Amino acid sequence: MPTGTRTGRATRKSATSTPATPAVARSAAVRGAPSAGSRRRGGAHRWVYLFEDGDATMRDLLGGKGAGVAEMTRAGLPVPPGFTITTEACNAFYDGEQTFPKGMWDQVLRALAETERKTGKRFGDARNPLLVSVRSGAKFSMPGMMDTVLNLGLNAETLTGLAELTGDERFAKDAYRRFIQLFSKIVLGIDGDLFEHQLAEVKTASRAKSDADLKPKALDEVIKRYRTLVRKHAGVEFPEDPMEQLRAAIGAVFSSWNNRRAIDYRNFNKIPHTLGTAVNVQSMVFGNMGDDSGTGVAFTRDPSTGEHKLYGEYLTNAQGEDVVAGTRTPKPISALAKDLPKAYAQFVRIAKRLEKHYRDVQDMEFTIERGRLYMLQTRSGKRTAEAAVNIAVAMVRERLITKEEAVLRVEPAQVDQLLHTRLDPTAAVEVLATGLAASPGAAYGKAVFDADRAEALAAKGEKVILVRIETNPDDVHGMIAAQGVLTARGGRTSHAAVVARGMGKPCVAGAESVRVDLARRQFVAGGRTVKEGEYFTIDGSTGRVIAGQVATIAPEISGQLKQLLRWADSFRRLEVWANGDYPHDAVLAREFGAQGIGLCRTEHMFMEQARLPIVQKMILADTEKQRRVELAKLLPFQRDDFYGILKAMRGLPVVIRLIDPPLHEFLPSLEDLLVEVTTAQAKGEPEKNWAKSAKLLEAVRRLHEQNPMLGLRGCRLGLLFPEIIEMQVRAIIEAAAKLQRERVDVHPEIMIPLVGTLEELRRTRRYLEETVRAVLSESKTKVHYKFGTMIELPRAALTAGEIAEDAEFFSFGTNDLTQTTFGYSRDDAEGKFLNTYVDEKILPANPFETIDRKGVGRLMEIAVREGRATRPGITIGICGEHGGDPQSIALCEELGLDYVSCSPYRVPVARLAAAHARLAVTERDR
Amino acid sequence: MPTGTRTGRATRKSATSTPATPAVARSAAVRGAPSAGSRRRGGAHRWVYLFEDGDATMRDLLGGKGAGVAEMTRAGLPVPPGFTITTEACNAFYDGEQTFPKGMWDQVLRALAETERKTGKRFGDARNPLLVSVRSGAKFSMPGMMDTVLNLGLNAETLTGLAELTGDERFAKDAYRRFIQLFSKIVLGIDGDLFEHQLAEVKTASRAKSDADLKPKALDEVIKRYRTLVRKHAGVEFPEDPMEQLRAAIGAVFSSWNNRRAIDYRNFNKIPHTLGTAVNVQSMVFGNMGDDSGTGVAFTRDPSTGEHKLYGEYLTNAQGEDVVAGTRTPKPISALAKDLPKAYAQFVRIAKRLEKHYRDVQDMEFTIERGRLYMLQTRSGKRTAEAAVNIAVAMVRERLITKEEAVLRVEPAQVDQLLHTRLDPTAAVEVLATGLAASPGAAYGKAVFDADRAEALAAKGEKVILVRIETNPDDVHGMIAAQGVLTARGGRTSHAAVVARGMGKPCVAGAESVRVDLARRQFVAGGRTVKEGEYFTIDGSTGRVIAGQVATIAPEISGQLKQLLRWADSFRRLEVWANGDYPHDAVLAREFGAQGIGLCRTEHMFMEQARLPIVQKMILADTEKQRRVELAKLLPFQRDDFYGILKAMRGLPVVIRLIDPPLHEFLPSLEDLLVEVTTAQAKGEPEKNWAKSAKLLEAVRRLHEQNPMLGLRGCRLGLLFPEIIEMQVRAIIEAAAKLQRERVDVHPEIMIPLVGTLEELRRTRRYLEETVRAVLSESKTKVHYKFGTMIELPRAALTAGEIAEDAEFFSFGTNDLTQTTFGYSRDDAEGKFLNTYVDEKILPANPFETIDRKGVGRLMEIAVREGRATRPGITIGICGEHGGDPQSIALCEELGLDYVSCSPYRVPVARLAAAHARLAVTERDR
Repeated sequence: MPTGTRTGRATRKSATSTPATPAVARSAAVRGAPSAGSRRRGGAHRWVYLFEDGDATMRDLLGGKGAGVAEMTRAGLPVPPGFTITTEACNAFYDGEQTFPKGMWDQVLRALAETERKTGKRFGDARNPLLVSVRSGAKFSMPGMMDTVLNLGLNAETLTGLAELTGDERFAKDAYRRFIQLFSKIVLGIDGDLFEHQLAEVKTASRAKSDADLKPKALDEVIKRYRTLVRKHAGVEFPEDPMEQLRAAIGAVFSSWNNRRAIDYRNFNKIPHTLGTAVNVQSMVFGNMGDDSGTGVAFTRDPSTGEHKLYGEYLTNAQGEDVVAGTRTPKPISALAKDLPKAYAQFVRIAKRLEKHYRDVQDMEFTIERGRLYMLQTRSGKRTAEAAVNIAVAMVRERLITKEEAVLRVEPAQVDQLLHTRLDPTAAVEVLATGLAASPGAAYGKAVFDADRAEALAAKGEKVILVRIETNPDDVHGMIAAQGVLTARGGRTSHAAVVARGMGKPCVAGAESVRVDLARRQFVAGGRTVKEGEYFTIDGSTGRVIAGQVATIAPEISGQLKQLLRWADSFRRLEVWANGDYPHDAVLAREFGAQGIGLCRTEHMFMEQARLPIVQKMILADTEKQRRVELAKLLPFQRDDFYGILKAMRGLPVVIRLIDPPLHEFLPSLEDLLVEVTTAQAKGEPEKNWAKSAKLLEAVRRLHEQNPMLGLRGCRLGLLFPEIIEMQVRAIIEAAAKLQRERVDVHPEIMIPLVGTLEELRRTRRYLEETVRAVLSESKTKVHYKFGTMIELPRAALTAGEIAEDAEFFSFGTNDLTQTTFGYSRDDAEGKFLNTYVDEKILPANPFETIDRKGVGRLMEIAVREGRATRPGITIGICGEHGGDPQSIALCEELGLDYVSCSPYRVPVARLAAAHARLAVTERDR
Repeated sequence: MPTGTRTGRATRKSATSTPATPAVARSAAVRGAPSAGSRRRGGAHRWVYLFEDGDATMRDLLGGKGAGVAEMTRAGLPVPPGFTITTEACNAFYDGEQTFPKGMWDQVLRALAETERKTGKRFGDARNPLLVSVRSGAKFSMPGMMDTVLNLGLNAETLTGLAELTGDERFAKDAYRRFIQLFSKIVLGIDGDLFEHQLAEVKTASRAKSDADLKPKALDEVIKRYRTLVRKHAGVEFPEDPMEQLRAAIGAVFSSWNNRRAIDYRNFNKIPHTLGTAVNVQSMVFGNMGDDSGTGVAFTRDPSTGEHKLYGEYLTNAQGEDVVAGTRTPKPISALAKDLPKAYAQFVRIAKRLEKHYRDVQDMEFTIERGRLYMLQTRSGKRTAEAAVNIAVAMVRERLITKEEAVLRVEPAQVDQLLHTRLDPTAAVEVLATGLAASPGAAYGKAVFDADRAEALAAKGEKVILVRIETNPDDVHGMIAAQGVLTARGGRTSHAAVVARGMGKPCVAGAESVRVDLARRQFVAGGRTVKEGEYFTIDGSTGRVIAGQVATIAPEISGQLKQLLRWADSFRRLEVWANGDYPHDAVLAREFGAQGIGLCRTEHMFMEQARLPIVQKMILADTEKQRRVELAKLLPFQRDDFYGILKAMRGLPVVIRLIDPPLHEFLPSLEDLLVEVTTAQAKGEPEKNWAKSAKLLEAVRRLHEQNPMLGLRGCRLGLLFPEIIEMQVRAIIEAAAKLQRERVDVHPEIMIPLVGTLEELRRTRRYLEETVRAVLSESKTKVHYKFGTMIELPRAALTAGEIAEDAEFFSFGTNDLTQTTFGYSRDDAEGKFLNTYVDEKILPANPFETIDRKGVGRLMEIAVREGRATRPGITIGICGEHGGDPQSIALCEELGLDYVSCSPYRVPVARLAAAHARLAVTERDR
């Protein structure tokens, strides 16, 4: 083994014998590998893989970046040599209270020796020093979320060697000061701004306009000041021993897996927190060795549109971080053909080969060191929703992938993005500035200038646009909260752009004419000043920054998306229905491909202006007779509603839910009335002025409930006041009968809500069947109708076997079922504790967004199994918000439901998600 | 078959050929047996049993009365011949829209012929007429709840025959007028008061003081007037055809199963509504044939005390209804020895034989017709709780029954009655009157004079005593609502007495010196006038009627009861623990035999006067630091509380639940504050006057929740404000440690409420374990403690297998579990719809009183099974009100729980119920 021949060297010795300095003690890992908390795994366990020992299938173990580099290495591409420390090592690191697992460090040393052999350089060698990058790399890409250290291995000695070797003292010193800066921030935890401040001071003193203008002398000053900063803030000398640097950096990358922004990102993107990150240690190549050097990133296809052409950016004489950070605005990749034609031609060949190899769009990082091309990374390219669809469809046409693969290549969430709003093209707009169209979609909101404020205002329900000079990972929580992002600097691959695209939020980046004044909390553009709190609009599809609030309209579905969804339809088993209360909802739902209406809520109709006074009179009536008088007035309204929706859905089922909310929801609020009456009384106003309100107050008090969610609502209302639902059923059947007479084929399905016992359903249904029979006999027509029930209470699920005796269909009301199963009132929980629960991982996800499998899902499973045992043909679906959530749809597929029903706009999402779910089940059962 | 020889008779013909008259068309049954709605059962089905064909085991089919008469007949006792129509026939009658099942009527005719043969009389025969009684008789006795018709078979012809045969015209005519009166009321549905009014008029006109004073002429007038009444109110002639009478009467008895008062009674007594009633047709014997005739009821032992001696009453020259209705005050049974010594001696012999035969106290009805004794009925005697216990214990000593039988002979509900209040013997009482001690126990309440008013006032939370001259079944709902009952007339077996004893409510009956003035809504007694709404007191154990409200005290447990409970303890497997928040609860619980404290609620302690201001300050604190300041003040209070309760329960486990309710429960109400602030503002008061309230209002608003039951409470509070539960746990462990140092063995068990996920429990527990360790290390003691959780959310039950990983015990909070499983807020549901649900049988019982097996029970079963699978030794119990409910205890036994916990006063009830439950399970598994 090569290491065996080198144990005599001082740097190697220090790895095991030098006690940790206080400066690096922050990470317990650096205390040395064979620490007290040693791993339970045997020493034989493999923690480290040379790039040539891995391949693309090893993402779990090596992370996306590591697997990608390994695959490239295997394919014979020019990749700087290096090795990957596994995600298992990261998890073992956490299991062991942040110490390296046993044997890992030895394996690192052996891999390092091999890297030395391949590069012909030596780590810590004064004459021919090997420098390395230490990068995180998780299974799923988390751009910029975790830490990276570059130029590691530099110290006073190797610096001199590097300078001599390259003949470029300035480059070497610049590399060293960059290393100190990055290492200090990431490994030693010192505020990066302190370094920027010193750098700026020296630049001013030496009249340097840019970093590149700094002369070696000035850089010496910078390095001196940096070392002083380290001494002051970390209380130790900056570590000179490269081995110490390496160990500390590896520990810091492991630790970065659980920093705040990484956790936020994973929460937002629903990436499990248990995966861990790999660490890639790779020999450095330098894009900043002069004008024949450069670095860039590129996609094999346009990640915004999917257009089939190389898309990317590069900077000459720069390191990779300059491109990603957006601090310099880069050139388009096409310009490379002119600047460095040979390297460009090689890159184009490699790009094509990679796309064909991976059968997907590649996102590649490269560096050209003195004219020589190195591939640093390749991975599946993130793309906008539009691009994802277009690429998937195009690749099927290019016979690169199958239809099934195309369907699986597009995430349901991406389809959702395609259904985001855009600006009304007929609206007059005052364009203040035009930047890069960095993430498509349009949005308006109040201008805010920092992430915390964006989060705070959004929490109050305000729409905000985050405005920054440029963004960095610390801004992520503000971006999550904002409607969109505007930056003055940075390109289409800048942090702001990449993250916004990932979130499906509009972003205008690099709008250089926008002058952002953070101190005064305003920006100036196009001669106008927009202060914090003022509305403005961005259009991320065109890059425009627009004054005021501009009207937006719903997007259309492109031909490609239609094609993709048709393919999805051919793979899915679940039907997709839509929730809609009005005829226009039904029309939209059909356009989006809905196969029925899964939930038509009748109470919204009660809330309309012309009807509410009648509804209130009905509720306040003292006798059934009085109630019936008012109900008779409501009947024609309801009949018209149902006529419209049934007609729009001709040929398809329409599930109409009978009145569900407690009656006091239709009356003024108790508090308002109380204040009104109390005020009038206190002011001594004559009773006639407030007697009516006082009477109303009394009625509202009578109807008041401690816990209205669990009170007199749903079928309970119908059992106490059957005349209300009798009117509704009469309206439904009269409308249906009229349509049948008009030769329109209609399928009303009457849904009885909040059933907890068979008896409730049985009585309600028996009562209503009489009404149905009466109407049909009056109208002398036949109507296909069904009676069914919501399964939205634990007891309904637990006794579904009985309930199915009288239900022709079940529809899971998973919102209420989640409320009762967890004992959460959604209204209260989300503001009071649920967000904390999700943030602090007490719950893996908000159960109102994604169905809780263990509790709610288990109840659903019981209900499906036992309901079907009683009535094998029973139709079972889900209505409510979960019906449009891909993870919940996957559960519905697994449970064998017949359909999911969601809002019309989510129907395309659900169609795709249903296909994914089906393909996953098919795959599993294979 | 005898009927075959008699088909020529007119009366027989009419049974099948005469169309129903309008008068009797009310019951569809009389349209004749082979009606359109004929039974699905074959004609061979047996609907009718002669008395000699049944026996005591056939209660399900023949009802209690029918089985009893059959058994007596079999035993060779003097029973008037007759037959029983089965409960199955009743149910078939209801299934068939109130028509007789096919074949039933033919069987009735055959049985009637057999009865004619045995009595030598013939039904409808003018010379030697057979008269019959038609009585209801369900499986469980429902005294007076259903209808009975006597003297059936009388008409103008047979009346003459009866008069000639008996030589007593007056008797015959009196029997006829009674028959018309009863039949008209029960079968034809005419208001009985109309008849009483006519009778009274004729009595006045003929100067008769009592009914017996009416001469035949006067009776003719009464009969004439009665017939006119029938013509007027039913629109038909009174039916003269005995067969018609019989058919209609049988139908009316069937119908009476579902009259209002029968349903009320069954609801109160938890008798299933599906049992149906049998109909007993029995040849009449007459206790009103002169002074050598009489009728009475008697028990083989005193049903109030259990004393071993004949106990009963009789009236000479009277029919049975005179005794039961309480219209004449009867003589004690012992007087019969003098009046009719031969009949008495025979009766005593029969009574002894019956008790030995049935191995239980018998409640017998007898009639003496001209010196000849007939046994009309025997059944297991209803008894007071005290008597039940004493009889059971005595019969074990008499070697009549086993200990196991003794335990099973006493219902847990009876033990509950023994724990009712009695008058404080040291209180000065002003006795207004003394009546019969008809049902033990004491109560005070406002005087009310009708059942509806009693019900209305009780619904408002008022305590009332129902005062009536005598009660009848229409008063039952008022008796249910009242604390107790006082009647001026009737004996210990009068309606009021029997029903009150059944309900375990105090009753003073036959207090003749109490002058009840219904019109003026008052009574006068002992020179005092008590008006409606004024308080007075009754003592049902002594018969005293007392002025004003008299202090009451808790009962002691008698030696017999202690003995019985000891036997019960030897049979039960379930432990019985008690709920108690204070040391005095714990002391009481131990006295009653509790084996631990299953629920000590810590929040009640927060409500105490000295503490509430501190608690409020703590809640309103803006920072954790401020909260901790207030919590430090609460700590000594809580520590003292726990010290007391742990000490009282030395050697036994004490489960202490951490704070559970939402914090706003400790603050003033939102509405009160709103009115206060609004009023002050409207009146223009200076802000300093109301600023504090306004601030409080704001805080209350901030804490306000839409559905507090499902909001920020339970373990959610502890996760958000861990310092609160940290203080509580510190208080618990400090108290425990102090006691251990004092050599008191204590077992605190810390219960974390409202857990829905393992993670909630895990984090809370880990946090609190640190506090425990800190306190134990400070105090240098060891304490046996446990951590566990409530299972009170469906999700907790569904994931109990996981939760058990971190829970050392489970305690079912079945109240909350019922709320969430059904989606009922108990506070809202009981007032708004739950009572209707129970009344209308949408639910079989109030699930907050008796655990719902299908829903809640199923969740419990899952939790027990899966919790034990994870942690085999886990202790599982139930706290909350269901823990004292016998039916729920039976479920807990079936589920294999370790203990039930209930209020201290219910501990003896639970001990007995647990024994019953265990014996039932053993019996089932045998």
